[in-house]
Amino acid sequence: MSTTSAEKLYGPIAILGGTGSTGMGLALRWARAGETIIIGSRDVERAQETAAQIKARAGGQANISGMENAEACGAAGILMLTVPFEGQVSLLQHLKPAIRSARILIDATVPLATSIGGRASRTLGVWQGSAAQQAAELVPKGVSVAAAFHNVSASLLNGDDPLDCDVIVCSDDPETTQVVCGLAAKIPGVCAIDGGKLENARVLEQITALLIGLNIRHKGHAGIRITGLPPAAYL
Amino acid sequence: MSTTSAEKLYGPIAILGGTGSTGMGLALRWARAGETIIIGSRDVERAQETAAQIKARAGGQANISGMENAEACGAAGILMLTVPFEGQVSLLQHLKPAIRSARILIDATVPLATSIGGRASRTLGVWQGSAAQQAAELVPKGVSVAAAFHNVSASLLNGDDPLDCDVIVCSDDPETTQVVCGLAAKIPGVCAIDGGKLENARVLEQITALLIGLNIRHKGHAGIRITGLPPAAYL
Repeated sequence: MSTTSAEKLYGPIAILGGTGSTGMGLALRWARAGETIIIGSRDVERAQETAAQIKARAGGQANISGMENAEACGAAGILMLTVPFEGQVSLLQHLKPAIRSARILIDATVPLATSIGGRASRTLGVWQGSAAQQAAELVPKGVSVAAAFHNVSASLLNGDDPLDCDVIVCSDDPETTQVVCGLAAKIPGVCAIDGGKLENARVLEQITALLIGLNIRHKGHAGIRITGLPPAAYL
Repeated sequence: MSTTSAEKLYGPIAILGGTGSTGMGLALRWARAGETIIIGSRDVERAQETAAQIKARAGGQANISGMENAEACGAAGILMLTVPFEGQVSLLQHLKPAIRSARILIDATVPLATSIGGRASRTLGVWQGSAAQQAAELVPKGVSVAAAFHNVSASLLNGDDPLDCDVIVCSDDPETTQVVCGLAAKIPGVCAIDGGKLENARVLEQITALLIGLNIRHKGHAGIRITGLPPAAYL
C-alpha cells in the first residue's frame, strides 16, 4: 500500500484547511510523493494561489490545484481535515452533501483551548471523546474516519528536510488505517504505526497540547517517536 | 544535578509499591546508580524479600532495604509512588503523617480503566485533572509533587540493557523538576525532559493507555522519544 499511489485506488486527496500551515506542509510532501492534491478553501482564489505556491516548491511534475471546499470534496476520494477546532463542526455540517462521494476522511483536529481564548498547551473536553469521534458523527454513512497527523510539526513539514517522527493512525476500519499509514509513510523520515480504534484519537489530540507546551518551553519543533515495538509495527 | 546523588541532598528514595514491577525496576536501576533505596510495602517481609532480590541483581555495593510503607516514608527524603490507581488515595491518606518528613513525592499513577474492571488501553477521568494532581491534594504541605516515569516499560526497566525512551517530568516547582530529571537521567538510555507544570501530567497518564494499546496490538514494550527539541532540552 505504501508504494502505490493512494490516488490510484481512491482518487485525489483534498486538503480542507489547505491554506493553513499543516495543510500546506502535507500538500507539499504528498505532491512530491506523486499524489494528486486539491487545496480546499472557502475562498477559491486563495486556494488557487496556495496551490500555485506549493506547486512551485514541489516541482513541475506536481499535480496540485485549488478549489472551493465543496468542489474540492466532490472531486476527491480522500479528505484531509486540517482546520482549527472551532471550525470543525460547522465545516463538516456545511460540506456534508459534498463529502458523500469521498471514501476516507482523515481528521487532524486538536481541541486546543485556544478555540475559546485559552492556552495552546491545554485542551477542551469533547463530548464524543475526541475531535475525531466528533467528525465521525458528522460525516455521511460510507465515509470512514481516521485520526492522524496531529503531532507532525507544521514548520518541519513545510521544510525540505526529512522529518524525524512517527505518525500514529487510529480508525475503526483496518483498510482505512492501512491507506492512511501508507500516506504517512510517504513523508520522508516518518514511520506510520497502527494505533488501534478511532477512540484512541483522544490521546493523539492530547499529545499535541503537550508538544506545544514543550515547544514553548524549549523553543523547538517537537514530534514523537514510539520505541520498543517490533519492526513490523512501523510502516 | 544528574551527576550528584539525590540522596546526598534529600535522603534515601522510598519506593511505595516497590514490590510491583515498575517499582522493582526503578529500584534496580537507581540502586545500580548508587542511590540508597527503601522498598516500601504493606507487608514488611515481602518488602525485605524484594529488597534482597534486587540487591542480588544490582550487585554487592547496592544500598537497598525493605520496610513497611509508613516506616519507609519516615526514613526517606524522596518518595516514589508506583501503586495501581485504585490504591493511590487510600495509601496517601493512610500515610499522610509519615510523609511529612519527605521533600518530594514522585507520582507515576495512571488512572487505567482496569481499576473498575475496564480495559488497560482506556483511562478514567480524574476530577482534579490527573492522578498526579489528586496526589498533590493529599500530601502534607511542604511535600512537592512531580509526575514522571509513567511511560517507561516496567519489563525493560527490570532487564539489564539500556532503555530507549525519554521521561517527561511535570511539577510546579523547578527544583523538584530538576531533582526528578536527575533521577530519570541516571537510568541508562533515558533522557529527561522538563514537561512544565503538574497539570500536564494528565497527558503523560493518557499516553500510558495508548502505549499499552500499542503493546497489545504489536506485541512490544513501547516507550516514547520526543524529537525536534534543542539538545539543551534533554538531560
